[in-house]
Amino acid sequence: MGKILIKNANLISMKEEKIIYGIDILIENSLIIKIDKNIEESTEIIIDATGKIVMPGLINTHAHIPMSIFRETVDGYKTQEWLEKKIWPMEAKLTEEDAYYASMLSFIEMIKNGTTTVNDMYYLQNATLKSAMNSGVRLQITRTIMDIDGDGEKRINELEEFIKDNKDQYENITLNVGIHGLYTCSEKYVQRGIEIAKYYNLPINMHFVENSKESEDIKRMYNVNSPVEVIEKYFKNRHLILAHCVKLSEKEIEYLSKCNVFISHCPISNLRLGCGVANVTKMMEKNICVSLGTDGQGSGSNLDMFEAMKFSALMQKGIQENPIKMQSYEVLKMATINGAKTLGLDNIIGTIEEGKLADIIIIDIDTSNTRPINDIFSQIVYNVKGSNVETTIVNGNILMENRKLKININEKDIINNCEEIINRINCKDNF
Amino acid sequence: MGKILIKNANLISMKEEKIIYGIDILIENSLIIKIDKNIEESTEIIIDATGKIVMPGLINTHAHIPMSIFRETVDGYKTQEWLEKKIWPMEAKLTEEDAYYASMLSFIEMIKNGTTTVNDMYYLQNATLKSAMNSGVRLQITRTIMDIDGDGEKRINELEEFIKDNKDQYENITLNVGIHGLYTCSEKYVQRGIEIAKYYNLPINMHFVENSKESEDIKRMYNVNSPVEVIEKYFKNRHLILAHCVKLSEKEIEYLSKCNVFISHCPISNLRLGCGVANVTKMMEKNICVSLGTDGQGSGSNLDMFEAMKFSALMQKGIQENPIKMQSYEVLKMATINGAKTLGLDNIIGTIEEGKLADIIIIDIDTSNTRPINDIFSQIVYNVKGSNVETTIVNGNILMENRKLKININEKDIINNCEEIINRINCKDNF
Repeated sequence: MGKILIKNANLISMKEEKIIYGIDILIENSLIIKIDKNIEESTEIIIDATGKIVMPGLINTHAHIPMSIFRETVDGYKTQEWLEKKIWPMEAKLTEEDAYYASMLSFIEMIKNGTTTVNDMYYLQNATLKSAMNSGVRLQITRTIMDIDGDGEKRINELEEFIKDNKDQYENITLNVGIHGLYTCSEKYVQRGIEIAKYYNLPINMHFVENSKESEDIKRMYNVNSPVEVIEKYFKNRHLILAHCVKLSEKEIEYLSKCNVFISHCPISNLRLGCGVANVTKMMEKNICVSLGTDGQGSGSNLDMFEAMKFSALMQKGIQENPIKMQSYEVLKMATINGAKTLGLDNIIGTIEEGKLADIIIIDIDTSNTRPINDIFSQIVYNVKGSNVETTIVNGNILMENRKLKININEKDIINNCEEIINRINCKDNF
Repeated sequence: MGKILIKNANLISMKEEKIIYGIDILIENSLIIKIDKNIEESTEIIIDATGKIVMPGLINTHAHIPMSIFRETVDGYKTQEWLEKKIWPMEAKLTEEDAYYASMLSFIEMIKNGTTTVNDMYYLQNATLKSAMNSGVRLQITRTIMDIDGDGEKRINELEEFIKDNKDQYENITLNVGIHGLYTCSEKYVQRGIEIAKYYNLPINMHFVENSKESEDIKRMYNVNSPVEVIEKYFKNRHLILAHCVKLSEKEIEYLSKCNVFISHCPISNLRLGCGVANVTKMMEKNICVSLGTDGQGSGSNLDMFEAMKFSALMQKGIQENPIKMQSYEVLKMATINGAKTLGLDNIIGTIEEGKLADIIIIDIDTSNTRPINDIFSQIVYNVKGSNVETTIVNGNILMENRKLKININEKDIINNCEEIINRINCKDNF
């Protein structure tokens, strides 16, 4: 660790809507300790950021990290059929070791695409946690509970054990209580999840009204007119992260805005599975904190938060038939500070400020795709790609520098391991 | 030129829905002359494609090539206001030399993102043509006509002169008759454009029902109940390329399917300008040939056909709420052979076959974003990025090899020239 000095950066701190040219950033251990012109300090590492953009690392608030190996298994299937014929049989064969490699592939993807924090909702949590520790990416994690198959008790015990073992253990790992969904958890287990969240003072993370069928299931199971009534009844004073929220009327969004919810919008996955388009415009009008997720690669294809930003912005403009909607700086906030708020981490990450943790990306914009620059915020949302990210720093550790991974992991080995896993557990193209 | 041998390719020829492993492709001058296992031939250039995907270069059927310098000037504007306050004042100051550099930036962008053919609809056509010749990218070009401002006569004369000067002059340049739109051309000039197309046997290229206002304008100006009636009346037996086609009912699409039209779908631009989403699903059901365009960078941000594919597929699945729609191989067809058909060039490009011109891209899929491979067609549509294209060949010329441009152009100089142009003609961010 030690000290890192980033020189001559063009800084988008996300603290305010502006860019600061030619500024230095001094990092000591995990912290940003000084942001100023011409810092004179002897440091082991100096990064010349002349002509580059420096901004907070991106925060992905909804993913299923070990699902990297399932990417592109979905085309041609209806969702239920895909789950039954492809995903669940493959998951049934997944070992802890498989999950470690599959997670590592995801963490490598994140580092190379400028994502520094991710919220995981899956199982095989010990493997994913180990993989996060070895990759250095900041993780919020859970052991997701559900009891639709009768195995609720086992899962909730695993969750509580996982929390006891790992709470406040590691600087870059935080926890939440994952409830798969109201349609896959009975009221009893929903309430037990909430009790655990209260006891350990953790956020709750839940899928919510991703598609019409789920919406109908919830109404039937809980005997309510709107799924939002269940949120109001059980979750009102909890820190609640809701993924998807596609199937909400304007009235339901207004109602939801009075609960303490944070929404993780996953535009690409919602399109891929034929769910529709969440009304993010209305959510933001009602001052709901909306952040961005990629979902797992099974439905989201990749973990590229630049794509998530572009799709989010374009979908709202196009569907609302109003090009004024979702201006670029708002979209950048969704991928950074709103993500931090969503995970309850905005006191430590989400902006570049003295005293915050050093989760920073450095972007090369001197390419034929990203010049000339007429509006730097739009340039990042619409033209910068993950591959423009040169350097990724998490918690003061350089995980990638000049596109070269600086972690103690062999990328080719991980890719090959993942190919072997999917060869073992699935029939696939003979590539 | 001479001979090029591509060894051990994994070939997606786009002639049929399959991948052929470990095959060689022999190119002589501009032509693909042999596709076979283990070709033994002494050639100047051998490209080892082991583990790579080889497929036809992508075909962009709607762009305004010199508009590269206007990218990201649109955020926060309604379309008409953007045109009046930003685009038209900037265009008024554009010189032929500016257009050359701006076009060259676009051609570099195309080469680096695997696009080998583009259909341009703009003016400053001599500059764009010169830039195409120097870059080596295949171009279909026009001098667009309209007479909304009373300058129709000048434009139509320039078009005819341009056709006379350039018809059948160059192996990689073809022409069409660009009519800006029914709402910007009076019936008289529409008819004169059609006459020119007939006389020189050229396709016609026109914007059509991009947004609701245009649709209403056409109905009023031509005194029809549907804009499609104008197509039926004037264009029925012409080879007609229609860009956008967002505002068409299912009934209008059915009606249009009986005319000889080719539709260029531009999903990203349509979203950005708040136009909506074209019903491509219905168009394809009615066997209309739909290809893909990026539009100009002013509204489309970039010329990345991989993004156009991804947006096309996802929009239809999401809006139709049906994940079965737009399977990946169909999307690949839109970006290749359908593009060739649209431009009337399917006898010479759009697939990789013996006897066709060598417009070929080689894609590296051995990256953490693109492994493991469960479905190679989906992998290309959803996970491959422009930056995965390693090598771009047009007309038997290698324009990029291993991500290095092989054209006699200095990329940095072009970027700097474009920054200077936009600094001169526009107020912009002080980046």
